[in-house]
Amino acid sequence: MAEKIFEKLVIVGPGLIGGSIGLDSKESGLAGEVIGVGHRRSSLDDALKMGAIDRASLNIEDVAGEGDLIILCTGVGLLPEMAVKAIPLMKPGAILSDVGSTKRVITEKIDEILDRNDISFVGAHPLAGNEKRGIRAARRGLFQGSVCVITPGAHSAPEETERLMSFWRGLGATVCELDPETHDQYLAEVSHLPHLLAAALVDTVSEESLGLAATGFRDVTRIAAGDPHLWVDIFMSNKEAMAGAISGLYEKLADFSSALQKEDRDALLCLLQRAKERRDGMN
Amino acid sequence: MAEKIFEKLVIVGPGLIGGSIGLDSKESGLAGEVIGVGHRRSSLDDALKMGAIDRASLNIEDVAGEGDLIILCTGVGLLPEMAVKAIPLMKPGAILSDVGSTKRVITEKIDEILDRNDISFVGAHPLAGNEKRGIRAARRGLFQGSVCVITPGAHSAPEETERLMSFWRGLGATVCELDPETHDQYLAEVSHLPHLLAAALVDTVSEESLGLAATGFRDVTRIAAGDPHLWVDIFMSNKEAMAGAISGLYEKLADFSSALQKEDRDALLCLLQRAKERRDGMN
Repeated sequence: MAEKIFEKLVIVGPGLIGGSIGLDSKESGLAGEVIGVGHRRSSLDDALKMGAIDRASLNIEDVAGEGDLIILCTGVGLLPEMAVKAIPLMKPGAILSDVGSTKRVITEKIDEILDRNDISFVGAHPLAGNEKRGIRAARRGLFQGSVCVITPGAHSAPEETERLMSFWRGLGATVCELDPETHDQYLAEVSHLPHLLAAALVDTVSEESLGLAATGFRDVTRIAAGDPHLWVDIFMSNKEAMAGAISGLYEKLADFSSALQKEDRDALLCLLQRAKERRDGMN
Repeated sequence: MAEKIFEKLVIVGPGLIGGSIGLDSKESGLAGEVIGVGHRRSSLDDALKMGAIDRASLNIEDVAGEGDLIILCTGVGLLPEMAVKAIPLMKPGAILSDVGSTKRVITEKIDEILDRNDISFVGAHPLAGNEKRGIRAARRGLFQGSVCVITPGAHSAPEETERLMSFWRGLGATVCELDPETHDQYLAEVSHLPHLLAAALVDTVSEESLGLAATGFRDVTRIAAGDPHLWVDIFMSNKEAMAGAISGLYEKLADFSSALQKEDRDALLCLLQRAKERRDGMN
């Protein structure tokens, strides 16, 4: 058992990420009690049955006053609304956090609405999960060996940031700290742009060609199966950084196109070689 | 045991693909004897030890006269040179084939150099394999459940095309027939463009961002680890079709960029939804 860090943990939206947080917090003893908040009774029942939560509520207002840590695990589009509901009810000393894929917009929103000095907001983004979603995809150990980015802002008391980091380390994640803008820029490059590319590629290919798609194409396009509603919200909340990442990609694609058009074998080889070295370096 | 289709099979370049053809042809009895041709003694020794070939030669000229079927399994850049060496020595009634990733250039080259009517050239492209290569990656059953595209041309006698198809079916592949140009167009979309994209993406991302790359990024960029020399040859031998595929992708990316810039949530959702449906349809 790990040391208990929070007496009561409220998970808003116990799906893949929230449910996995619940399973591991309970198993390890990082949290004394885990309360799940959702809008569908059946999902909450599943979460209870799986042991991801101890108690369930359909209204965040009913339990927001109890949490020592409240983690918002909804899609990024719903985060501000949930924060607005929770903040006035939170008990002094409590921490509000989230697991959203973008951090600038929610942090700015919190700066705008948070009118108390006795609670902290500390953003977090665990880099785990896949194209699946929902509580049934939750599992123990999801964060083991993964990275969780913590993005403190103007309303993050240093000691509360440290507590949240300890919590994530307890879940098995390696923690790193970035400011919200930098987080969003990096994620635009390694997550949001790749998703956009995968979707664009799948939609470019003719029906006839698709019949010849093998492993490589399946790998490249796998993430295009992700939930469109979630991804629209992610894209919309990170459009500046994505525009920058798209420009960078266009330049690189132009290098490839130009080398190909000129039949410049050496230039092409150099581009492919560098890509291979970087990719090999990731393993 | 399957019915024997070829008494003697010559595999030029018994690596991942050639070696796997050898293993399965011998195991199933599709070929009476398998002769491997390579330029490295150590690879041929590995192929012999693994049972992928019965006999080895360092010179295609020494064994080209024996084969009832000769399959060129080198990279596409070396195919014309190997064909030039083999053709004059082949015995009447024999078939020359290949497993190259592009088919137009090699078929045109064959049309240019093939001055005999008593042998056939029938191109083939098994859609199997991954970023690994070499004889040690060869394995039994590699083609089981895969697709092999057969691309007959001006020098493919119909009955020989049929024989080659039976051979690939015997290896477990589903066979489909396309003309070389169409094959190259389709493959530009589902294989060559994705490879270029994966390489461009890996090379666009900053070093700092790369530290936050998770499963999605790894999936999208996995094929960028492929052999740069092989891929340069593939790109160079399919540059017209690739230029078309790149244009198609640019248009689609422009749709995404424009929707993002205008914050047009419905347009973005529509694009992502369509991509998800197509990707889901592939499983």
